[in-house]
Amino acid sequence: MSVNSFGNILRLTTFGESHGFAIGGILDGFPSGILLDTDFIQNQLNKRRPGQSKITTSRNEPDKLRILSGVFEGKSTGTPIAFMVENSNQRSSDYHTIADSFRPSHADYTYSQKYGIRDYRGGGRSSARTTVSQVIGGSIAQHLLWPLNIRITAFTSAVGNIKLNKLPEELDFSLIEQNLVRCPDMEIAEEMTSFIEKIKDEGDTVGGIITCMIENVPAGWGEPVFEKLHARLGFAMLNINAVKGFEIGSGFDGIKLKGSQHNDLFFVENGKVFTKTNFSGGVQGGISNGQSIYFNVAFKPVATLLQNQKTINAALQEVSINPGGRHDPCVVPRAVPIVEAMSALVLADFFLLHNARKY
Amino acid sequence: MSVNSFGNILRLTTFGESHGFAIGGILDGFPSGILLDTDFIQNQLNKRRPGQSKITTSRNEPDKLRILSGVFEGKSTGTPIAFMVENSNQRSSDYHTIADSFRPSHADYTYSQKYGIRDYRGGGRSSARTTVSQVIGGSIAQHLLWPLNIRITAFTSAVGNIKLNKLPEELDFSLIEQNLVRCPDMEIAEEMTSFIEKIKDEGDTVGGIITCMIENVPAGWGEPVFEKLHARLGFAMLNINAVKGFEIGSGFDGIKLKGSQHNDLFFVENGKVFTKTNFSGGVQGGISNGQSIYFNVAFKPVATLLQNQKTINAALQEVSINPGGRHDPCVVPRAVPIVEAMSALVLADFFLLHNARKY
Amino acid sequence: MSVNSFGNILRLTTFGESHGFAIGGILDGFPSGILLDTDFIQNQLNKRRPGQSKITTSRNEPDKLRILSGVFEGKSTGTPIAFMVENSNQRSSDYHTIADSFRPSHADYTYSQKYGIRDYRGGGRSSARTTVSQVIGGSIAQHLLWPLNIRITAFTSAVGNIKLNKLPEELDFSLIEQNLVRCPDMEIAEEMTSFIEKIKDEGDTVGGIITCMIENVPAGWGEPVFEKLHARLGFAMLNINAVKGFEIGSGFDGIKLKGSQHNDLFFVENGKVFTKTNFSGGVQGGISNGQSIYFNVAFKPVATLLQNQKTINAALQEVSINPGGRHDPCVVPRAVPIVEAMSALVLADFFLLHNARKY
Amino acid sequence: MSVNSFGNILRLTTFGESHGFAIGGILDGFPSGILLDTDFIQNQLNKRRPGQSKITTSRNEPDKLRILSGVFEGKSTGTPIAFMVENSNQRSSDYHTIADSFRPSHADYTYSQKYGIRDYRGGGRSSARTTVSQVIGGSIAQHLLWPLNIRITAFTSAVGNIKLNKLPEELDFSLIEQNLVRCPDMEIAEEMTSFIEKIKDEGDTVGGIITCMIENVPAGWGEPVFEKLHARLGFAMLNINAVKGFEIGSGFDGIKLKGSQHNDLFFVENGKVFTKTNFSGGVQGGISNGQSIYFNVAFKPVATLLQNQKTINAALQEVSINPGGRHDPCVVPRAVPIVEAMSALVLADFFLLHNARKY
Repeated sequence: MSVNSFGNILRLTTFGESHGFAIGGILDGFPSGILLDTDFIQNQLNKRRPGQSKITTSRNEPDKLRILSGVFEGKSTGTPIAFMVENSNQRSSDYHTIADSFRPSHADYTYSQKYGIRDYRGGGRSSARTTVSQVIGGSIAQHLLWPLNIRITAFTSAVGNIKLNKLPEELDFSLIEQNLVRCPDMEIAEEMTSFIEKIKDEGDTVGGIITCMIENVPAGWGEPVFEKLHARLGFAMLNINAVKGFEIGSGFDGIKLKGSQHNDLFFVENGKVFTKTNFSGGVQGGISNGQSIYFNVAFKPVATLLQNQKTINAALQEVSINPGGRHDPCVVPRAVPIVEAMSALVLADFFLLHNARKY
Repeated sequence: MSVNSFGNILRLTTFGESHGFAIGGILDGFPSGILLDTDFIQNQLNKRRPGQSKITTSRNEPDKLRILSGVFEGKSTGTPIAFMVENSNQRSSDYHTIADSFRPSHADYTYSQKYGIRDYRGGGRSSARTTVSQVIGGSIAQHLLWPLNIRITAFTSAVGNIKLNKLPEELDFSLIEQNLVRCPDMEIAEEMTSFIEKIKDEGDTVGGIITCMIENVPAGWGEPVFEKLHARLGFAMLNINAVKGFEIGSGFDGIKLKGSQHNDLFFVENGKVFTKTNFSGGVQGGISNGQSIYFNVAFKPVATLLQNQKTINAALQEVSINPGGRHDPCVVPRAVPIVEAMSALVLADFFLLHNARKY
Repeated sequence: MSVNSFGNILRLTTFGESHGFAIGGILDGFPSGILLDTDFIQNQLNKRRPGQSKITTSRNEPDKLRILSGVFEGKSTGTPIAFMVENSNQRSSDYHTIADSFRPSHADYTYSQKYGIRDYRGGGRSSARTTVSQVIGGSIAQHLLWPLNIRITAFTSAVGNIKLNKLPEELDFSLIEQNLVRCPDMEIAEEMTSFIEKIKDEGDTVGGIITCMIENVPAGWGEPVFEKLHARLGFAMLNINAVKGFEIGSGFDGIKLKGSQHNDLFFVENGKVFTKTNFSGGVQGGISNGQSIYFNVAFKPVATLLQNQKTINAALQEVSINPGGRHDPCVVPRAVPIVEAMSALVLADFFLLHNARKY
Repeated sequence: MSVNSFGNILRLTTFGESHGFAIGGILDGFPSGILLDTDFIQNQLNKRRPGQSKITTSRNEPDKLRILSGVFEGKSTGTPIAFMVENSNQRSSDYHTIADSFRPSHADYTYSQKYGIRDYRGGGRSSARTTVSQVIGGSIAQHLLWPLNIRITAFTSAVGNIKLNKLPEELDFSLIEQNLVRCPDMEIAEEMTSFIEKIKDEGDTVGGIITCMIENVPAGWGEPVFEKLHARLGFAMLNINAVKGFEIGSGFDGIKLKGSQHNDLFFVENGKVFTKTNFSGGVQGGISNGQSIYFNVAFKPVATLLQNQKTINAALQEVSINPGGRHDPCVVPRAVPIVEAMSALVLADFFLLHNARKY
């Protein structure tokens, strides 16, 4: 049990806090001989990066990837790929006012209780900055899926009450990077952006949903009982900061359907198997069935407000705080590459496991 | 990576198929010297048992627990606790008609694709019968939590469109076992029961939601990045057959709130820390905060219908099937002890890990 | 961390004590579609079985393999293979006299200290009877190696001071099963047998060495730093009861050679790579080099004597005991199939891991 | 399965090659609130460091420890401790002559076969330079053992045919650091040093044995079947570069004794349990018995010679090489801190596991 690791045959172990010299990780089990597209990795990092637009925090971290090992002349060597991103533009001073207080719905209190010690400079290990390592690890993992033509696409499908109501086949993924919220519908995106700006002006925050589509996963990945493919995906998503829910396929809405409505009927076309509907979300009995995998991930509103809030301090006295730092009004747009990265880690791991048995 | 194991320090490994001599498992890492309450374990098994009421399948499996090792003179010895339940009342003949066909939204197709071989007698390892081992393992795990006064209570909170709309503090858990659906509200329970009966008469099925409350978990359990307490709980739940969604605390509804509404404000009473609301569901930053943990688990409608359905067979020809076996119209009432069991496995494991570091 | 499991992708978890209903295990991760040779497995069990000859214990346990799951119509299904062997012919009464005493160099004292509870009927989980599960698991694992033409052969190479001094190429493995000690030299075997008989008459015991040869392992198996092939083999062997030492290739004697003598020089014959000597024992830098793997395993003399011995009891008083049960004067002949089984578990696991990366 | 990780609750994952920016690792699971003695860690690194004396390689690597995370104001925070040591003084040019050849008894050939790619600059991941990370991780782990008064002491006990023949109670550990070979006997140390110098002058190398004593381990650590304490220690040692053998207690010599000679008789003194002899090496049935643990580790002669050697190249042609770099004539003196470090990782992990169950 490595509590800061994720995955089995392909395993990412991460380190680092919001403040400190660097954050990073080690990706172990990555096969040799694969040319790494570092532009792709850096680009995914840039999508997660703070300060990228008017609706994100104004902190400006360059987040420059540095690979420490496991790559020689551009190719993976089969040995652990270690990487780091130096922490810069840390304004610990932002946190002095709250060093002694437990911010509401933050991890300040729970970390104090767990560790008996607290790095008061910005949340330490609980900071969403730790997701930098996940984006890097997952973006490297993606390289294993490309030759199989597997395409992972995450996008914002809800912000507060504003929801994208489109069928998967109506989506135009090329629009995702055309707007600030990463929603594949320019009108809804505009609505979401305006709403986030309004919320930001109030010093408040709002939650949202990211939907992820994974195309071209072959049938047969996932394990029957305790490593169901969607359970691993759910586990991956629920480990992302601020996530409170996960549903695959019909999810929570599916409970309202009858079995006769919900069953995905098989049919054959050109010798290939398809289903007429896809309420299963591409996974049946924990194993991929060859249809598109899709799932929703719910992100709660960011806990850090630019408002006064009552709370308690370490001496259990009532205090009032106004964190006053530079934070996001809505975490969802920046979380899109994280959802993609964690999905890639899950799929690449199952791919290797699937290979293991194919002999 | 043991694909049929769950847990770290306390680890359950299970075996068995719906048809075959027996199903069972090994619970490893359970401390020594603990008196096992086998009546409790058998009672939890009985709640999961088919044939227990008019709204469940009429299959009648006694599911008698047999402990093979790890217990001496009633107490755990610290060595692996192996257990099994013999399979009986298997009517493989029920399945002859479907042996060659892929039932819609079942695992027949995906298992064929994965293993290239199929145990056509009732789903093999994909059968919900495998949850017998989970109930046993989890019920043993519960023994570790009792001395801490931790109470795990699951109940049916929705069937189809019928939903229990009560605040946690309004619930009377003593009612759960007073009705067939295991809902802590007799009126709603009656409504749900009637609905399930109607659905059953149609040869159809319906889904539902189980809510689980976990009281008295101390602050400080769970890990900061990749083993968040709620992520493990979600992973556990998503590994239960037919589960398509998991949400903790405010979950999917929470995205609509502003941060200023959603933040759980701390206060102190008699020297103890509480929060005014509990949208966090008892977990902040992946770590328990001492408030009650609660979450919802969405179960899809059972895929096996007593109706004709079109599907394909292994030769990829269109066929029509009517499985005609003895199946549940709604899996939710029988899944209540499974949700409790998987929760117990998660919590007991984090408890042991927490102890490990406390030195 | 499953403390009663061994292996990674292919993982054996065992259960059971010397006394109790049954011992057995679960082999998880075994690929589907493989026809199991149950005669081979039972035959390996028979080699381990007590009561097989005049130089082993007179306990007579039939040790009949029973497979509980994971096999359908003779073939593996890809799901966990659970198996058990019922305990029979247990004479707990043999142990009444020692129930309260700590037998010297046994695990009685350490188990009491660890668990605070003791199954006094014959050693409980510390009994060598637990190796039954290892033989079964490993013999199933062997099936993965046969198509690769990998041959694992263990044999007795020393008993007390009597040592087999032959080069590997001089060994005739067909002789191993022609004598009671399982030594591939009939003369030395006779000497060893006589010596063991003499020791048995004295009510004493003696140790020995098992050598294992593994032929036809392809180059490239094993991991560079923490999962070196020979480290895993050593770990496997040191987990067998009574083993106190492991050496691969030149081992402890190799330290006396100069590098210029010890280096194995490469040469090419018919386009294939060989080494002139094989002091490396087939592993270089933790990875197989295609040459034969061979290693030695040292077994201490059995601790149970048919003599009076002074010791202490649980009340820390001096007592004198004479266990008087039915025990082996030398454990080595019966341990030969255990060494083969544990080797097979290691190699099959590395084979699957090797496959995983080959894409 | 993380193939570059070691340990369970306390787990070290390492990265890095001999050539490249840095080597290092992540130690996960280390409890919070522990003041790190960085001088101790650096000092252990210095003992491993090349260029420390006339009998080691003349490469001069400062090996300066840099901690990247997990430590705040000198104390562990409970989060992953990441560390690195920059590679400097790498003379890749040393390797140009051998870039295309497989050095005998090196990992050049096996790595090529495994990865299909080779970092020809000094062995890459197979370089003993990777043990830097082990020394750091293990030296941090030691901090958990100090409060228990556990003392780990490794020393050189043999170089070639020169052997230290003293009983443990005759050893004066304060002498270990008084001589270049790290042997607790000044006369034998002098002999060993002269011998290594002579071997060095010949451009040759020699092997040796390191003995490790671990005092004050409480009774009850280790697991009964697959995680025996000595099996984990053996696994740890066999994963160190150049190690070919491991024996605990009486080891390979113990096979020659009768059980009546070999059994360690218990006695009680001042209410505490002791054994008259300690052939068990402090471990019985896989579990510590409270007596001193001691074991031997055999290191083969270093494969890199300053002599011409015949070998083959990647095109399978015969070539002659003379690596000509800066290498050790005997690796044993510098391996002493590595043996201590790996021992500490094993013991600290079992300590945490032991705590987990103590409730």
